[in-house]
Amino acid sequence: MMMGQHLLIECRGEHALLNSDQLEELMTRAARAGGATIIASHFHNFGGHGGVTGVLMLAESHITVHTWPEVSYAAFDIFMCGDAKPEKAAEVIADQFPNAEVSIKAIDRGYELGSTRNK
Amino acid sequence: MMMGQHLLIECRGEHALLNSDQLEELMTRAARAGGATIIASHFHNFGGHGGVTGVLMLAESHITVHTWPEVSYAAFDIFMCGDAKPEKAAEVIADQFPNAEVSIKAIDRGYELGSTRNK
Repeated sequence: MMMGQHLLIECRGEHALLNSDQLEELMTRAARAGGATIIASHFHNFGGHGGVTGVLMLAESHITVHTWPEVSYAAFDIFMCGDAKPEKAAEVIADQFPNAEVSIKAIDRGYELGSTRNK
Repeated sequence: MMMGQHLLIECRGEHALLNSDQLEELMTRAARAGGATIIASHFHNFGGHGGVTGVLMLAESHITVHTWPEVSYAAFDIFMCGDAKPEKAAEVIADQFPNAEVSIKAIDRGYELGSTRNK
């Protein structure tokens, strides 16, 4: 049974230099583009050049970000269930910086996927 | 360049019936087993039988959960970078209920993965 889709987004370039306010604004636009409802947001600055960790908690699951400005890397993930459109949200993130290198991996979420119990 | 590993964990069974306090306790044990440092935690109850959404923000990235008690499904994800051991964290979650069906998918995170720009 498929419950939703989980997109893992790798960004090399300017995304990694955004501060927490800019990331929250970008992720909020992404959530809206995907038709999702934000129920809370939490961002943490590691200080100095240490990057940002942030999450938008959605009625449809979540969007997170983690940045490593020192290596120009930002990792986003978008998990949306129901009628939301995670690929529309991912487009907003991918399109933010034309020169960034962006790759997206989509994984179906639900309980008939994957392999057997893995311990 | 690999920055960390992201584990997507599908659980069919009792995990989906845990309340937010129980999920936070389980995820906290998982984070510690993985050697990670918790910097914040946020949980949201959808009310009634609507399930729970929660996140532990880690110095090493995050652990999230979303539950759908009505279909006995809980979706966890564990993203840890650096020296943390996400597989140890996943073990804590997988071992919680011997009768649950648990599958785990591991995806390397970093910017030389995956396909080219996907828009």
